[in-house]
Amino acid sequence: MHYFEDIPVGVPAEIGSHSFAQEEMIRFAEKYDRQDYHLDPEAARAGPFGGLIASGWYTGAVFQSLFVRHLQKIAEELRRAGRPVARLGPSPGFTDLKWPRPVYAGDTVSFRTTVEKKRVLRTRPGWGAVHFSNEGFNQKGERVYAFRGITFVERKPA
Amino acid sequence: MHYFEDIPVGVPAEIGSHSFAQEEMIRFAEKYDRQDYHLDPEAARAGPFGGLIASGWYTGAVFQSLFVRHLQKIAEELRRAGRPVARLGPSPGFTDLKWPRPVYAGDTVSFRTTVEKKRVLRTRPGWGAVHFSNEGFNQKGERVYAFRGITFVERKPA
Repeated sequence: MHYFEDIPVGVPAEIGSHSFAQEEMIRFAEKYDRQDYHLDPEAARAGPFGGLIASGWYTGAVFQSLFVRHLQKIAEELRRAGRPVARLGPSPGFTDLKWPRPVYAGDTVSFRTTVEKKRVLRTRPGWGAVHFSNEGFNQKGERVYAFRGITFVERKPA
Repeated sequence: MHYFEDIPVGVPAEIGSHSFAQEEMIRFAEKYDRQDYHLDPEAARAGPFGGLIASGWYTGAVFQSLFVRHLQKIAEELRRAGRPVARLGPSPGFTDLKWPRPVYAGDTVSFRTTVEKKRVLRTRPGWGAVHFSNEGFNQKGERVYAFRGITFVERKPA
């Protein structure tokens, strides 16, 4: 990860896309979200969404897997360039987690993250707070996933 | 599900507890959250949490599985008693998703849901908005998971 000081504000970063295959959506739902419109293609067709849709928690898990890979790629590049890698603190949580539209079987969702602001922390010397906004868009450009959060990132050593 | 009118406000409902086994936490993390403290018990011991902890998204998925089962149990009981079952609308999203403390391998987390308020919807005749607060506590009584949300629930037919 880049140091707090190196992170650009207001520039969306593409973190990857994922094609939601029906089989994997059902496999997740069988374990964690046993509702008809996540589990059963036929019942889903007759249901409120007109088709099988992903559990919102599956969309969240897919986002997380791409986000972690994105951060690890940045760390890897920094290491290869012989540059130091900043530490990331744990996230205290998120606000405004939204699924504005369903993710249907066969949809491809592209995710991105944008830093909205940064804040130096007086109470945690050596660390800064990064406020980010994460979003996912389907192949039609419709927003299907969004949340805001804060992460603590190490500051550049003086 | 009970109709909007039947749902009590301010009464916490226990929706179940789950023991977080290290193996299942690692299996989830391998797929969705490949960070050392979710994946590797030895690296986790040396890391910021002093032990292997669950991906926050795994805690969310476990909550969801218990919550869905809880609602289905209520619906089943109503059906068996020959009473009608209200429909639930999709959730527009959540606010204030928090992981105030880590969930360690071996922890048992008890989850509960509390309706904070109800609101009749003028814009959606026949439906009401139920504002709920969901929480999880570990075996020491420490809060490890929390979020707030809104769900639409069918009103009792006049």
